[in-house]
Amino acid sequence: MGTVVWWLVTVLVVAVHSASAAVIEEKWEVEYTFWWPDCKEGIVMAINGQFPGPTIDAVAGDRVIIHVTNKLFTEGVVIHWHGIRQIGTPWADGAAGVTQCAINPGETFTYNFTVDKAGTHFYHGHYGMQRSAGLYGMLIVRSPKEKLRYDGEFNMLLTDWWHQSVHSQELALSSRPMRWIGEPQSLLINGRGQHNCSQAAYFTKGGVRECTFKEKDQCAPQTLRVEPNRVYRLRIASSTALASLNLAVEGHQLEVVEADGNYVAPFTVNDIDIYSGETYSVLLRTHSFPSKIYWISVGVRGRKPNTPPALTVLNYVDAPDSDRPTHPPPVTPRWDDYDRSKAFSKKIFTAKGYPPPPEKSHDQLILLNTQNLIDNYTKWAINNVSLSVPATPYLGSIKYGIKSAYDLKSPGKTFTNDYDIMKPPANPNTKKGSGIYNFPSGIVVDVILQNANVLKGKISEIHPWHLHGHDFWVLGYGEGKFRRGIDEKTYNLKNPPLRNTVVVYPFGWTALRFVTDNPGVWFFHCHIEPHLHMGMGVVFAEGVNRIGKMDIPDEALGCGLTRKWLMNRGRR
Amino acid sequence: MGTVVWWLVTVLVVAVHSASAAVIEEKWEVEYTFWWPDCKEGIVMAINGQFPGPTIDAVAGDRVIIHVTNKLFTEGVVIHWHGIRQIGTPWADGAAGVTQCAINPGETFTYNFTVDKAGTHFYHGHYGMQRSAGLYGMLIVRSPKEKLRYDGEFNMLLTDWWHQSVHSQELALSSRPMRWIGEPQSLLINGRGQHNCSQAAYFTKGGVRECTFKEKDQCAPQTLRVEPNRVYRLRIASSTALASLNLAVEGHQLEVVEADGNYVAPFTVNDIDIYSGETYSVLLRTHSFPSKIYWISVGVRGRKPNTPPALTVLNYVDAPDSDRPTHPPPVTPRWDDYDRSKAFSKKIFTAKGYPPPPEKSHDQLILLNTQNLIDNYTKWAINNVSLSVPATPYLGSIKYGIKSAYDLKSPGKTFTNDYDIMKPPANPNTKKGSGIYNFPSGIVVDVILQNANVLKGKISEIHPWHLHGHDFWVLGYGEGKFRRGIDEKTYNLKNPPLRNTVVVYPFGWTALRFVTDNPGVWFFHCHIEPHLHMGMGVVFAEGVNRIGKMDIPDEALGCGLTRKWLMNRGRR
Repeated sequence: MGTVVWWLVTVLVVAVHSASAAVIEEKWEVEYTFWWPDCKEGIVMAINGQFPGPTIDAVAGDRVIIHVTNKLFTEGVVIHWHGIRQIGTPWADGAAGVTQCAINPGETFTYNFTVDKAGTHFYHGHYGMQRSAGLYGMLIVRSPKEKLRYDGEFNMLLTDWWHQSVHSQELALSSRPMRWIGEPQSLLINGRGQHNCSQAAYFTKGGVRECTFKEKDQCAPQTLRVEPNRVYRLRIASSTALASLNLAVEGHQLEVVEADGNYVAPFTVNDIDIYSGETYSVLLRTHSFPSKIYWISVGVRGRKPNTPPALTVLNYVDAPDSDRPTHPPPVTPRWDDYDRSKAFSKKIFTAKGYPPPPEKSHDQLILLNTQNLIDNYTKWAINNVSLSVPATPYLGSIKYGIKSAYDLKSPGKTFTNDYDIMKPPANPNTKKGSGIYNFPSGIVVDVILQNANVLKGKISEIHPWHLHGHDFWVLGYGEGKFRRGIDEKTYNLKNPPLRNTVVVYPFGWTALRFVTDNPGVWFFHCHIEPHLHMGMGVVFAEGVNRIGKMDIPDEALGCGLTRKWLMNRGRR
Repeated sequence: MGTVVWWLVTVLVVAVHSASAAVIEEKWEVEYTFWWPDCKEGIVMAINGQFPGPTIDAVAGDRVIIHVTNKLFTEGVVIHWHGIRQIGTPWADGAAGVTQCAINPGETFTYNFTVDKAGTHFYHGHYGMQRSAGLYGMLIVRSPKEKLRYDGEFNMLLTDWWHQSVHSQELALSSRPMRWIGEPQSLLINGRGQHNCSQAAYFTKGGVRECTFKEKDQCAPQTLRVEPNRVYRLRIASSTALASLNLAVEGHQLEVVEADGNYVAPFTVNDIDIYSGETYSVLLRTHSFPSKIYWISVGVRGRKPNTPPALTVLNYVDAPDSDRPTHPPPVTPRWDDYDRSKAFSKKIFTAKGYPPPPEKSHDQLILLNTQNLIDNYTKWAINNVSLSVPATPYLGSIKYGIKSAYDLKSPGKTFTNDYDIMKPPANPNTKKGSGIYNFPSGIVVDVILQNANVLKGKISEIHPWHLHGHDFWVLGYGEGKFRRGIDEKTYNLKNPPLRNTVVVYPFGWTALRFVTDNPGVWFFHCHIEPHLHMGMGVVFAEGVNRIGKMDIPDEALGCGLTRKWLMNRGRR
């Protein structure tokens, strides 16, 4: 394909909020609605009647004001702006129990924040498993001076879909014994998939049924209509609840140029892996054939798949709608070819122009994830603590010094030396807890995610971890147990990619570094929604002394002990 | 059967809260759990892991303190103490949006009230359709000096059960076009029923399948074990979402002695009708056969039934468990034999010893119910207003004078003279609204419930209306349209029954009277949960000037505009 990107390198990192910045203000109503995401009727969480929710299309520096009205019957709701760092506005991060109270039915909450730098992002529910219920949409922040050159662009929001309601899933996962929710019934591209049929059935005589959706059906795939000899930017985001994905475009290569809202040194591949919580921009150069049709295929990796790939097509301008691709769709790489997955991860470096990470860190966390039985409930724990998010949001209890709102004792900064990550967990002291990690402002923190064997069998799972409020540098990946004092020497301190989500591979570790330059309380958790529901997350409080002086709308804190505090403040 | 009751008539009405009164204090956790209510697995709302919730067994004058912790994932919850008048404690009535805010997940709310008089009551969820999800239980208040003589008693809580989740039902009813939820899959007695099989299949060779539950299964019926020649009190409550029921005990007559917590003049019947929201005590005198087994059958009336009767047995002491009744179960009277239903209603008079109602009323409401299309949503409306309960509870907005929290204009006190109740509705001005009726303290109010034709066909439905905070006198039932100034003359002012729930028959009217002696804000609504969900209710504010001085826990008002008010009061 050759390099289709020309870098005009100066300062890429910050597009300052300027006088010319616009305000994007919208009223959103969140409600359930019947929908046919995969040609079978189900119930989705829609925004203003749309599923997925409306795309926010902003320019770096813009102010985004979204008035979210909860039109659900009995459920609270919040919306997290995934990838937006919320500098100065931690209360707008939309993580229930961490940065705000859930919005009650019938009430309206206003998110008001600046999208300070360009990137491909998305937003989603962050309460219970409402993301999996379909509460998501794209959030595009354009650069006022885009360095990438392309002729057109497409958004591709990738998700997975279950026929079992999320209420039932939440209960299943929280039951004793735990009932696993199984693999998704369908994968969706921009909310559209096909269950129990295949668009490509004509290549496999017998067996799978040919899909019969009509063009205007809610499950009909959106075609990517392109012209020959052009360059297109595909903005791809994964908001899956569970599935790790691979995306390929038949007969075309993809040049990866952006990851999680940061430019990367361009590299060309036949397909990309994308984990839940990640976003990529890839450039696709079209061929000179004016009337061809090619498959775009999205399949499952990292777990033994039981879900057929999602398909749509790249349709060159002269190809009739009724035409179909003449070759079968690209085959998703073997789910357990982890070497291939790692090779992809290791191709990602920062683009030129970004400053390197600080050379040294001031603090280090080594976070061991284990699957545990606690009182016969199956839980995920980090350093022996399975996170139980309190009813009072941390941001509020810290601001007002309400010490009874959560466990004041921090979880351990590491785990015992003799823990064998290759065996089922032998840490019987695992507990549910709400303790958090505290960091002063302005320090450099390293986090090593340490994977381990699950409860049964010889298995370790993939976990994509997402940090709120920050980008971080991915310093490296390793096999087996992290060797403190040794493995640090392998860190890439020259051109590590800046991201907000990174995966830890089975039986391995992943190291990342960030600077505590954003006072607030930030969730850091596995982006697999059932895993988070089962306790797989931690919370970072940063610059606590500055939080006390921060302006936080009372409406963000109208629950639990902060409600009580605010109601009584005048009486003090 | 003869009269098995001896009335020691003095003052029956009030059992004063005395120094000897006990405190019943419990901690309840509300959570979803998998359950097999009708031998098919579903999800119920359980309390402390029990379904139905624990029975409260109190004595008149006791204080009941229930700490309700919401262990749901994303939903609020409240509990209404159905039949308890909450004198002086209107904030403890448990009607979301009316008397309190829903309790948020993870939070605890304490109900604290006195059960001032004896009676058979129950409690249930009063938010969304959580009652139908299984959030209910019995609430028995005993008299310290019980006038009824009996040897034993049984509680029978009757409910209906759907296999479709209430979340899905709520959405279906709120969709455009509305999707009706259909008839329940099963009827439950104390939370136990049998779907797709019959305990009495051995009487009907072929067709229906014999049930195969085991004795300890969650769906196995509870046997009523009795001794010969004894008198038993059956305390029967209906918390159905939809179904009107009829209960019969094979080979036994029932002497009705209590309705909705008030003694009635005893009368003997072969079966009783019971509508949602009603309770009855009946006395059953056992025969002298020591080893017989008889069916107890509960079937649907008032709607064309598509639900098989619920069955259990009355098992005399020497009858082996393995024995089965030798006769088929009693057959439920024809669903549309309304004359029979009315005949039952008209047998109910107050017991001797109760004072008669006031002879005159100071105010009169004539409440026409109509089914309407509003913006193509199917709604129920009262005098052209379909109730939309606001996010801020009325009790709080009234206490603090927050005038923007609801429609200040009251709905009409009657409807237009020329409205034809025999035809589909021609009231195109129907709107959603949150206006309420205001009454000063100490007056006598008459309410006439006026039934009418539904949207389509020549149909009028049964509606059991339940008033919170009060008992009322049922002054009479009539056919057709209430004739103001004429039909009042037919009122029974001598010995009308005191109740908290009363039915209005198809194409007819029902008149009731109450005294505004309980300052508060009281819901008055059709107890059919889908109907209430679709707007079939009104709200009475009573003694508003006294509400301002009332002690209402802040925790009851921590939502909407009252939250805001309370957070800012110190700043005023």
